[in-house]
Amino acid sequence: MSKLVIVGTVAFDAIETPFGKTDKILGGSASYISLAASKFNVDSAIVSVVGGDFPKEYLKTLNERNINIDAVEIVEDGKTFFWSGKYHNDLNSRDTLITDLNVLADFKPVVPQSYKDCEFLLLGNLHPTVQMDVIKQIPIRPKLVVLDTMNFWMDNTLPELMEVLKKIDVIAINDEEARQLSGEYSLVKAAQKIYEMGPKYVIIKKGEHGALLFHEENVFFAPALPLEEVFDPTGAGDTFAGGFCGYLAKTEDISFENMKNAIIYGSNLASFCVEKFGTERMQELTTDEVKERLKAFKELTQFDIEIS
Amino acid sequence: MSKLVIVGTVAFDAIETPFGKTDKILGGSASYISLAASKFNVDSAIVSVVGGDFPKEYLKTLNERNINIDAVEIVEDGKTFFWSGKYHNDLNSRDTLITDLNVLADFKPVVPQSYKDCEFLLLGNLHPTVQMDVIKQIPIRPKLVVLDTMNFWMDNTLPELMEVLKKIDVIAINDEEARQLSGEYSLVKAAQKIYEMGPKYVIIKKGEHGALLFHEENVFFAPALPLEEVFDPTGAGDTFAGGFCGYLAKTEDISFENMKNAIIYGSNLASFCVEKFGTERMQELTTDEVKERLKAFKELTQFDIEIS
Repeated sequence: MSKLVIVGTVAFDAIETPFGKTDKILGGSASYISLAASKFNVDSAIVSVVGGDFPKEYLKTLNERNINIDAVEIVEDGKTFFWSGKYHNDLNSRDTLITDLNVLADFKPVVPQSYKDCEFLLLGNLHPTVQMDVIKQIPIRPKLVVLDTMNFWMDNTLPELMEVLKKIDVIAINDEEARQLSGEYSLVKAAQKIYEMGPKYVIIKKGEHGALLFHEENVFFAPALPLEEVFDPTGAGDTFAGGFCGYLAKTEDISFENMKNAIIYGSNLASFCVEKFGTERMQELTTDEVKERLKAFKELTQFDIEIS
Repeated sequence: MSKLVIVGTVAFDAIETPFGKTDKILGGSASYISLAASKFNVDSAIVSVVGGDFPKEYLKTLNERNINIDAVEIVEDGKTFFWSGKYHNDLNSRDTLITDLNVLADFKPVVPQSYKDCEFLLLGNLHPTVQMDVIKQIPIRPKLVVLDTMNFWMDNTLPELMEVLKKIDVIAINDEEARQLSGEYSLVKAAQKIYEMGPKYVIIKKGEHGALLFHEENVFFAPALPLEEVFDPTGAGDTFAGGFCGYLAKTEDISFENMKNAIIYGSNLASFCVEKFGTERMQELTTDEVKERLKAFKELTQFDIEIS
């Protein structure tokens, strides 16, 4: 079983969708990622920071699922990162109402000694200098380094981001971000440009339209499962990345063929994530449910044409 | 070999894209549909109308590909339907510059006697009363009736369109049109509402994001092939529909499982259509090229996860 280190936020989210609203609940990229990866029983650890106001019960929720939280620093006199957002009626766009960085502003990540030999490293969406700091703390290069980032860092810290890109294997961004980063509208051309920046694998997330995985001349597409209702899209992208890495860490196979399976699992888990508020659905999700939905993904995509 | 009747426009198009512009070239839904269907060597016939200005060579282009044009009425003292449009830089949207209905304004379709026993009927995007007129001329209900329509008819002739929907098996519309017709944002719910209007199969075309096929509780997804460059999207939707019907007419199997293959073929042919202006690529396209691209579709979508 490979070790997976997850760097990202552990946070409070307050979410409003057309279906209701929440007070502060468990959120943050590392929470979603680790809950998704935990479905594969991997040995994972979160590197993050919270304030003294963060409920111990939330940390217990993670730790109970075999997620190591020793490297989640607790700043007793600080406040936890807080994000609040309101989704529009189509759930495809949202307004950010509040972003209080709080303890995240001075976050100095520390990779625990027992995870410095990790084989998988997932750098969740954070300041590129934090991501680079983590990379430098790991003495032997992991088998696979996966990066999630967003347009905010492209707008504000592009040189630092470009340095990080040289050190990673897989980048996961959405279609608009891929276009921004590459300056190419065609996603095929965008991926080719991004290869030149460092990553050998480019995952382009298209939300309800699925995700593309590019590697050299190869491309694979994982659809999003068409759902009757999307209840809350928060964390879907992180869940996708967590499922992708979790499956690879479990199978210890980073071939392109196995990455196909990994992004199907990522899409599978993301389809559950959006069914309830926040991490609720991911917390209760069973392996049997995941297997059952895998059948739906097969039905959705597999066809049988003889090429004569 | 089943007979396929195609009702639609045979027209002049003048197209401008970021890559160049054309004078009047062969266009129209029935031209694209029939060229796509011709890749399956089906016995097809177009029901349409052109003016005296329409080049005989264009009709020959169709007829040479085993497309019966006896029911393409030539109004010698009339002018052919003319559409002109200019695509925006992203090629996902366009402005219509000219729509001259000309002979189409008084079009009275006549299904030739020798095709009244057709097993497949494809009603291309036209006024619903023209579509209904054709349905009524066919005494024995075909095995499968497929309808393409658009928001224009939903806006302007909804009662007539609703009558046509009661008579058909498959509707092919884009995502925005499915939402408009059903009043549902979720495409799953949209398909369910549309079932109640008549069609048992709902195809939702999402352009570069692929297409969904809904039937009862089943759903299948055909991706669009990620392309380096889309040169001219004109006719891609018609080509998709023509490929879908052509494959079904060739195989004479209208099971849901075979419809999966049919929409993969539709997506396959559409991916060629957009590579050149107008019908140019479809005219020269060989069966070997189609087969080769089928491999790309398999690579793009097929995965091998054991569900243990």
